[in-house]
Amino acid sequence: MIVAMKSGAAPEEIQAVIEKISGFGLKAVDIPGGERTAIGIASAIPPELRQTLTELLESMPGVDRVSQVSRAYKLASREFHPTDTVVMVKGVVVGGNEIVVAAGPCAIESREQLFEAAAVVKRCGGKILRGGAFKPRTSPYSFQGLGVEGLRLLKEAGETFGLATVTEVMDPHDVDLISSFADILQVGARNMQNYPLLTAIGDSRWPVVLKRGPSATIDEWLLAAEYVLSRGNPNVILCERGVHPLDREHTRYTLDLSAVPVVKYLSHLPVIVDPSHACGNWRYVAAMSKAAIAAGADGLLVEIHPDPGRALCDGAQSLKPDSFENLMNDLRSVACAVGRPLP
Amino acid sequence: MIVAMKSGAAPEEIQAVIEKISGFGLKAVDIPGGERTAIGIASAIPPELRQTLTELLESMPGVDRVSQVSRAYKLASREFHPTDTVVMVKGVVVGGNEIVVAAGPCAIESREQLFEAAAVVKRCGGKILRGGAFKPRTSPYSFQGLGVEGLRLLKEAGETFGLATVTEVMDPHDVDLISSFADILQVGARNMQNYPLLTAIGDSRWPVVLKRGPSATIDEWLLAAEYVLSRGNPNVILCERGVHPLDREHTRYTLDLSAVPVVKYLSHLPVIVDPSHACGNWRYVAAMSKAAIAAGADGLLVEIHPDPGRALCDGAQSLKPDSFENLMNDLRSVACAVGRPLP
Amino acid sequence: MIVAMKSGAAPEEIQAVIEKISGFGLKAVDIPGGERTAIGIASAIPPELRQTLTELLESMPGVDRVSQVSRAYKLASREFHPTDTVVMVKGVVVGGNEIVVAAGPCAIESREQLFEAAAVVKRCGGKILRGGAFKPRTSPYSFQGLGVEGLRLLKEAGETFGLATVTEVMDPHDVDLISSFADILQVGARNMQNYPLLTAIGDSRWPVVLKRGPSATIDEWLLAAEYVLSRGNPNVILCERGVHPLDREHTRYTLDLSAVPVVKYLSHLPVIVDPSHACGNWRYVAAMSKAAIAAGADGLLVEIHPDPGRALCDGAQSLKPDSFENLMNDLRSVACAVGRPLP
Amino acid sequence: MIVAMKSGAAPEEIQAVIEKISGFGLKAVDIPGGERTAIGIASAIPPELRQTLTELLESMPGVDRVSQVSRAYKLASREFHPTDTVVMVKGVVVGGNEIVVAAGPCAIESREQLFEAAAVVKRCGGKILRGGAFKPRTSPYSFQGLGVEGLRLLKEAGETFGLATVTEVMDPHDVDLISSFADILQVGARNMQNYPLLTAIGDSRWPVVLKRGPSATIDEWLLAAEYVLSRGNPNVILCERGVHPLDREHTRYTLDLSAVPVVKYLSHLPVIVDPSHACGNWRYVAAMSKAAIAAGADGLLVEIHPDPGRALCDGAQSLKPDSFENLMNDLRSVACAVGRPLP
Repeated sequence: MIVAMKSGAAPEEIQAVIEKISGFGLKAVDIPGGERTAIGIASAIPPELRQTLTELLESMPGVDRVSQVSRAYKLASREFHPTDTVVMVKGVVVGGNEIVVAAGPCAIESREQLFEAAAVVKRCGGKILRGGAFKPRTSPYSFQGLGVEGLRLLKEAGETFGLATVTEVMDPHDVDLISSFADILQVGARNMQNYPLLTAIGDSRWPVVLKRGPSATIDEWLLAAEYVLSRGNPNVILCERGVHPLDREHTRYTLDLSAVPVVKYLSHLPVIVDPSHACGNWRYVAAMSKAAIAAGADGLLVEIHPDPGRALCDGAQSLKPDSFENLMNDLRSVACAVGRPLP
Repeated sequence: MIVAMKSGAAPEEIQAVIEKISGFGLKAVDIPGGERTAIGIASAIPPELRQTLTELLESMPGVDRVSQVSRAYKLASREFHPTDTVVMVKGVVVGGNEIVVAAGPCAIESREQLFEAAAVVKRCGGKILRGGAFKPRTSPYSFQGLGVEGLRLLKEAGETFGLATVTEVMDPHDVDLISSFADILQVGARNMQNYPLLTAIGDSRWPVVLKRGPSATIDEWLLAAEYVLSRGNPNVILCERGVHPLDREHTRYTLDLSAVPVVKYLSHLPVIVDPSHACGNWRYVAAMSKAAIAAGADGLLVEIHPDPGRALCDGAQSLKPDSFENLMNDLRSVACAVGRPLP
Repeated sequence: MIVAMKSGAAPEEIQAVIEKISGFGLKAVDIPGGERTAIGIASAIPPELRQTLTELLESMPGVDRVSQVSRAYKLASREFHPTDTVVMVKGVVVGGNEIVVAAGPCAIESREQLFEAAAVVKRCGGKILRGGAFKPRTSPYSFQGLGVEGLRLLKEAGETFGLATVTEVMDPHDVDLISSFADILQVGARNMQNYPLLTAIGDSRWPVVLKRGPSATIDEWLLAAEYVLSRGNPNVILCERGVHPLDREHTRYTLDLSAVPVVKYLSHLPVIVDPSHACGNWRYVAAMSKAAIAAGADGLLVEIHPDPGRALCDGAQSLKPDSFENLMNDLRSVACAVGRPLP
Repeated sequence: MIVAMKSGAAPEEIQAVIEKISGFGLKAVDIPGGERTAIGIASAIPPELRQTLTELLESMPGVDRVSQVSRAYKLASREFHPTDTVVMVKGVVVGGNEIVVAAGPCAIESREQLFEAAAVVKRCGGKILRGGAFKPRTSPYSFQGLGVEGLRLLKEAGETFGLATVTEVMDPHDVDLISSFADILQVGARNMQNYPLLTAIGDSRWPVVLKRGPSATIDEWLLAAEYVLSRGNPNVILCERGVHPLDREHTRYTLDLSAVPVVKYLSHLPVIVDPSHACGNWRYVAAMSKAAIAAGADGLLVEIHPDPGRALCDGAQSLKPDSFENLMNDLRSVACAVGRPLP
């Protein structure tokens, strides 16, 4: 941690900062510059002290600002865990060399719809079936999902087709329920900083796909992962799904693919990409899926629907079965070009 | 709802859109333009159909895009409720002519700290005591609040000083617990789209301060309010607290004060402003508080701390008692200038 | 400047950074932390070296990132110029205690329109007449302004009504031309980083209103001012006019009023606010004008039009004469509440 | 164009809108909805009327908002020019099937540096040499480029190695000068809406790379292209280079790769990607280059430097010769995977 003093800071203000730091048992180093003094902390700062100390120092007279040298997350950082984390679930390996594709409808609408979708996923080489049972909808008047009945269908479809399953959980008290039906939990973008939910998932040790919030910085996202990891659950799969766009004229969000190599550099956790929610339009999903794999993503989360024209949710961004099949073929070429297999 | 067709759309594509609309019992009107055809829906669209229909139409061949004529929220809209909503709690009137100031520490740290703050709030003319018992923190290693013990202290301080109280709720299952201690619930910015939480608060009928999420558009914010209102709880106070900033060099968020007149135009709900979280720096809180009142806000939510240099949370953005007293005096002049009393 | 090394940086990587810094004649200070080493530069860094050195250090092996202790601007900084700058033009004092209002039509359309607007500005207490002769328009098909004929009308109207005048310059080669007609030049938001233009204005010594670009951080804005100041022109008036919004559903831009106290803290330059372009809707202009003055702005730049329903440019955001008169009366109260006169 | 009236709009307000539209010789169609009335314009709206009419209608009583059915750009639109535009310069074909890579140093620093870079570009299969002679720098104290001497070196290097050349122009009066030395002009992101510059380039008919501004929407970008096209210059190459990021902790900008398929859908113009400025860090350039090609870009603009550790500009984001060589090999595989050759 580095404290930059104002250029006109008084010697006693500088001294007070040094004493405040020393009062916590930390070593302060004075760095007189040409214009202003900076004070560095040359000791390990206990994680629970970090934010409080930053704010205390920022509120002292003569202090201009405080900047961080170390990162706030530890367990999510590659610095302390250099090898890639691999999440294994029902024989599916996420974060290994092989590209993993999860696909399925936005919302589970009926047994027929889900099974038809699952058959397509299986046939085209997908490994994970996605499907929403409890749906977060911007409007209270939109279809909210089938609930437990949807979970039952998801479990049945997964078993029938030999696919692992993933579905969203929104309420911390539903973690046990949902993990009794699905193989992987999903934390939606709107809940990335829902701390009771992250804590409950951390305690459950269940594999989780953690979507990035639309205005979350990468550090905030990794700190959300830290909530899960710090409760003893190492099975975190990060999912980029788009950040707030300049406008919504053409896409719903701006897919931040640079997050893929950045997260790969900063963290050991697997990272997948959801091009469907980011684009909000099936027309751009194939291009962004290929780009995601080329950028180094470990997998994709794609929306498909047997009949998008009748979908109760997100029809506009869902691929039809034949488009998905074509996409999977194209993805095999791109995956191969970056040296990774896609079955 | 208006469906803009592509300029080269085939007659049968146009016909298919008209038939799709008619299939839902709605009337479609054809508007041939110079370059392309638009199709309007000249019937009331049932709210539960709106999003699904939009997506269905967007996925049809020949369709360029679908735009909305009506707003997606009804109960939050001034169109259907022209007079201002007033939320009354323990004799405090939010949304009336009088400006209401809520103040207190970010986190409740001790009986002494909270009571000292409450005495300052009361003495300076504040009406509501704020204080966090369950704290949402970006890092799992930061101080997470005193929990139930904090709630007890808040209730006691409110009663001792004759102040209404407000505190944050993060878990839908804590709504009953927290409303047994506090007069007003607060939904934090990170939870603005936590639908199980909004639904539980809607069912409780308890007054709620609903903060705007940092990347939420105004329509998304009003739709979050709609979740609460549609469960039969009319006691919603909106709170602007800053949107995602261009950088975090000088402020933590960008306080969007234009949201105040915009929300006043679109909705009947009271709107207050939290300048402390937006600025993240006590230095700018007074200026933005005055600006908020001048812009037409019904009140403020301000962080104060008897001794910011020892705060466990958000010390850098908390006002000291004497700064708060000066601010309240300045606010009285500004409130008066816009024709509103501040006691 | 502080160089944060990666946690696993090798001793020879740390040594190489120290040597690189020393090679520029600067003193490097080693700050070993708990997890990683930081290296501080304890010398004044020549301004022309700053950016290059940052980039060189960032590209060295073992370096995690480089952060700044000093600010990149000098002449614009209050640290080196503690007293407020006042820009005087034709007897109008911008940046003094008195609030200054500039108003007029977006585009000069005719003698009649401009003179009618000028009469209103004068009568209501405005000091500066604004009016566009060369208009930057997003579409090449929109009205582009009257050009030199507009300049002539502006000069005549200013002289007739005893108002100072301001108009936009877009081309560095027009600086001489435009300053022979207008008292103050305006750099539009789209040109904030048009360096040939800033340099030409710096050389001219002519007073300039420098609008903030819609995605410019405050530091980038002050660096744009530094371009003008560093050519020997101290007459810079900063103008906040809104940053890129979350959406454009209700306002064109998000007026960042917190920029006012932030700039007042960082810089000695006067700062005014343009609520018309930010809002893009006359309905919100009055509220934001009052808020701007309450936030500490030195003045306003407001669009008015004798007949907005016939305006060739920005009719939707222009105030009618009677609305402007009401606004000026309200502003007098707010100015008074913050201890500043508005004539 | 569709005018949505407020739900409580009076019949005479609706009538006034219809008459205003008719007054321009356009046909108005009334679409009564369930809650409010919309009025459609069922005629071709002349381009020069479009913006003015929108603003006039928005300022009328009873109007809620005005939305567009047609796009504001015509010449840039694929609707009116379905086949891909191909820009040919010195035997290089941009926008054809072959992927084109432009590379070189951010700033031309010396004959040796430029020639060394050019040799690398040529050897690795690049077709265009980039190099800045007039540099836009955020700080006036940073290196501003070699000017005309740089242009001379660029021309010589291009001829020596058989590479086309591209360099930035910032001043409309430099268009002739620069086009006498370089094969392609570049409009930098900060100048995307510098209309005198766009007009001068339009008049010159010289090929131009038009970078997207960091807060420009795609429609604003295509309207900037329209400025060039509408002066009779069809040789526009669009270049995505990153939009304003959530923070600058890890990348300078957020590369918006979804802009590639969106622009390909909306427009016939070729689109290339600059991953170097977006990332601001060489570490992420290779991943984003591969992703850009996978997303469908027609080429890349990459910064390389023979010795980034000594670069005067943007050293941190420049690739070394061997990294560039590796990248080109990887790109060949990705290009092949998406069915396009890269020599």
